[in-house]
Amino acid sequence: MQRTLVNETPEKVGQEVLLKGWVSTRRDHGKLIFIDLRDRSGLVQVVCGDQAKGGTGRYFPKDLRTEWVVEISGMVKERPIKLINEKLLTGKIEIEAKEIKVIAQSEELPFDTGLPVLNASLPMVLDYRPLSLRHPRNKAVFQVQETIISSFRETLKKEGFTEIQVPTIVPTATEGGSQVFKIKYFDAEAFLGQSPQLYKQIMVGVFERVFTLAHAYRAEPSVTTRHMTEYLGLDAEMGFIDDFQDIMDMVEKVVKNMFERVEKERSEELAIFSATVPKISEKIPCMKMREAQQVIFERTGRDNRNEPDLEPEDEREICRFSLEKYDSELIFITHYPTKKRPFYTYADPKDPEFTNSFDLLGRGLEWVTGGQRINEYQKLLDNIKKWGNKPEDFDLYLQAFKYGMPPEGGFCLGAERITMQILGLENIREASLFPRDMERIDKKLSVKKVEK
Amino acid sequence: MQRTLVNETPEKVGQEVLLKGWVSTRRDHGKLIFIDLRDRSGLVQVVCGDQAKGGTGRYFPKDLRTEWVVEISGMVKERPIKLINEKLLTGKIEIEAKEIKVIAQSEELPFDTGLPVLNASLPMVLDYRPLSLRHPRNKAVFQVQETIISSFRETLKKEGFTEIQVPTIVPTATEGGSQVFKIKYFDAEAFLGQSPQLYKQIMVGVFERVFTLAHAYRAEPSVTTRHMTEYLGLDAEMGFIDDFQDIMDMVEKVVKNMFERVEKERSEELAIFSATVPKISEKIPCMKMREAQQVIFERTGRDNRNEPDLEPEDEREICRFSLEKYDSELIFITHYPTKKRPFYTYADPKDPEFTNSFDLLGRGLEWVTGGQRINEYQKLLDNIKKWGNKPEDFDLYLQAFKYGMPPEGGFCLGAERITMQILGLENIREASLFPRDMERIDKKLSVKKVEK
Repeated sequence: MQRTLVNETPEKVGQEVLLKGWVSTRRDHGKLIFIDLRDRSGLVQVVCGDQAKGGTGRYFPKDLRTEWVVEISGMVKERPIKLINEKLLTGKIEIEAKEIKVIAQSEELPFDTGLPVLNASLPMVLDYRPLSLRHPRNKAVFQVQETIISSFRETLKKEGFTEIQVPTIVPTATEGGSQVFKIKYFDAEAFLGQSPQLYKQIMVGVFERVFTLAHAYRAEPSVTTRHMTEYLGLDAEMGFIDDFQDIMDMVEKVVKNMFERVEKERSEELAIFSATVPKISEKIPCMKMREAQQVIFERTGRDNRNEPDLEPEDEREICRFSLEKYDSELIFITHYPTKKRPFYTYADPKDPEFTNSFDLLGRGLEWVTGGQRINEYQKLLDNIKKWGNKPEDFDLYLQAFKYGMPPEGGFCLGAERITMQILGLENIREASLFPRDMERIDKKLSVKKVEK
Repeated sequence: MQRTLVNETPEKVGQEVLLKGWVSTRRDHGKLIFIDLRDRSGLVQVVCGDQAKGGTGRYFPKDLRTEWVVEISGMVKERPIKLINEKLLTGKIEIEAKEIKVIAQSEELPFDTGLPVLNASLPMVLDYRPLSLRHPRNKAVFQVQETIISSFRETLKKEGFTEIQVPTIVPTATEGGSQVFKIKYFDAEAFLGQSPQLYKQIMVGVFERVFTLAHAYRAEPSVTTRHMTEYLGLDAEMGFIDDFQDIMDMVEKVVKNMFERVEKERSEELAIFSATVPKISEKIPCMKMREAQQVIFERTGRDNRNEPDLEPEDEREICRFSLEKYDSELIFITHYPTKKRPFYTYADPKDPEFTNSFDLLGRGLEWVTGGQRINEYQKLLDNIKKWGNKPEDFDLYLQAFKYGMPPEGGFCLGAERITMQILGLENIREASLFPRDMERIDKKLSVKKVEK
């Protein structure tokens, strides 16, 4: 008999089906046992009756436990109206078990997986990641993440971008040596890339518009709820821009399609977190960093008007302001100071102390960062020196500009960060299947010293 | 005036357009100069006439050189019939230049980019990667690669697979310590993953069917035309298989859709290489390794019938045999010896010396490798020990099986390897934007010793 997926059962009322999956929960009601069976398509209720007590089931699963893998053959029956579960896709039917075959057993679980939220600390959840990810709430995070990533690709493909693959092993620590992981590379040394930035810029010379999904690595020796040592960057770069407004317009297309698709395809998952995608205005509002600081000063009396960046508290305040004034949970902040941005950032010709760069803030945090880049070879070379770097470390990168590069710019989103922000998660680790930080790679790191 | 893309010009005959792009080639014909203008959508011929010599052009681009970035406004005109270029999408029209604005200049090129194939050695091509990638032939490789990758995702999404993101920093060198790159990870040490194998298996417990695009790293101290130290694996894993035939059937779906899409969407690029996608029979033929060795013995007299693996020459011979006998350039070889496969490989219950594993060979090389995995916790634990590994290094992995895992298996394709094989490239480095090997990370490695 061919397997039926759980989500196909509602169309098979009155038919016998063969289901395969995991026992998600089991409830004993005397002569009846109820099993929630889980497969990749959903959950369905299975009723097992004890023959000895007058039930119809041939196998009464007294010893069957949570997470056991089973094959169940049975009859699809409509539920009595008062027992319909509207929340469940299969809530109008149930399976009357005829036979249950155990495929694999499970050892006793370290926590109760039947609760709406696991009653376990984050370290425990991570210690038992293969199990905790099976829980509907944890699993939902990565279903939403898949849609986020797939919508990013979809929007940009439509806009004429080419998807590229860039390496993560890099020859030099281009963005500051101390926060870079070092690799023993045969007899030489190499590093883990902090972003695909230089490669995506090079590729503008080839495909004009490119995007890439690239692992990025930061050896920051601190543990926060918003940072990991390895994360997934959703990176894009585009040539022949008229202005850096073009880049922000592209970001807007990306996030709008993202929110639409998450809302449409992942409503069940959003509901688990009581989450909604951010409200945005017809056009996402936009203001300069100095204007934002002025607004913050006027609203709170906090005078950061000469600071070179927004403080976390400033970012939260300006998001509140945006929601109140523009009815938008997202807002672009532009023109960050030249000194605070990387060497390749394009200075505003009208005010070179500030750059044609932007952050997209939402719900109090940075969602996207981007800007226009310097596309003139000589200016780029000068800036590399000015920022204290060695031009020979940027040989390959500089070539792209030496041989003709149009005005260009781009942006980057962190996949885990966006997932966290859409679902309102407390810790970014919840948005990574196997999060890496200073203290953990799968399990807590034992303090094992490296040979020096 | 709004920009027109090159591939939109044929529909704008008689209209004035604004084009933006790179000067791909320039040909001087006395009072006329012909420019091939390149943008992300294609190539178009631009005719510039010298006013002084009676031409219509306002700007006669005497100094304009290859790879300069320009904006050209001009009129779209039909070409005289005898000048139509059928090979070019825009071959029926040309642009009569009115004005040319130089956006960015290029320095002198290290080689002539106007030839059908660059006249430069592979090291030189790689030394000048940002420039050499702009050449239509080199660029085409990555357009084909994009389609390969996107077709892989498409097939598996349709088959109910979830795309997952797995880390590349791993805590232990699980597949042999010597060929693994070591990372200095704060005060501890970590490694670069050799494959997403263990993580994708874990995720079968969560999503049943998963795939991932994962960078994989091999510190093999050798330089061949078929290996790099960093490559992109297209990995899939599926639960609730009846037999390992199910996995091969899935591989077949993946490659068939891949070939169809490459043929349909990338015919121009295939033509550049005079390449065709492999011919395959209705059902890809399949034979056991021992049977293949017998066939090779009978065909060539070479007696490798007791060898534990196929030699490269054997792989080429069995591919010739497959083409002759089954009219298929691809063939599955199954049942490799248990000793030669990793600890998680499922032994054939009828003959435990051999495994339920397979390679898909094509055009003399391995294209895909895969097989059924052990899904019983105790058996897996025993095998880890038997293979000389420490169970505590596999804690997280083992949990997935401890808490109930159905029969499962999966497969892996190397993105660069497949690209190379479809296009008939001589060296896998041509199929990587920025290839890494023992001797090169962007530029040739200087022999800089690591501190010990």
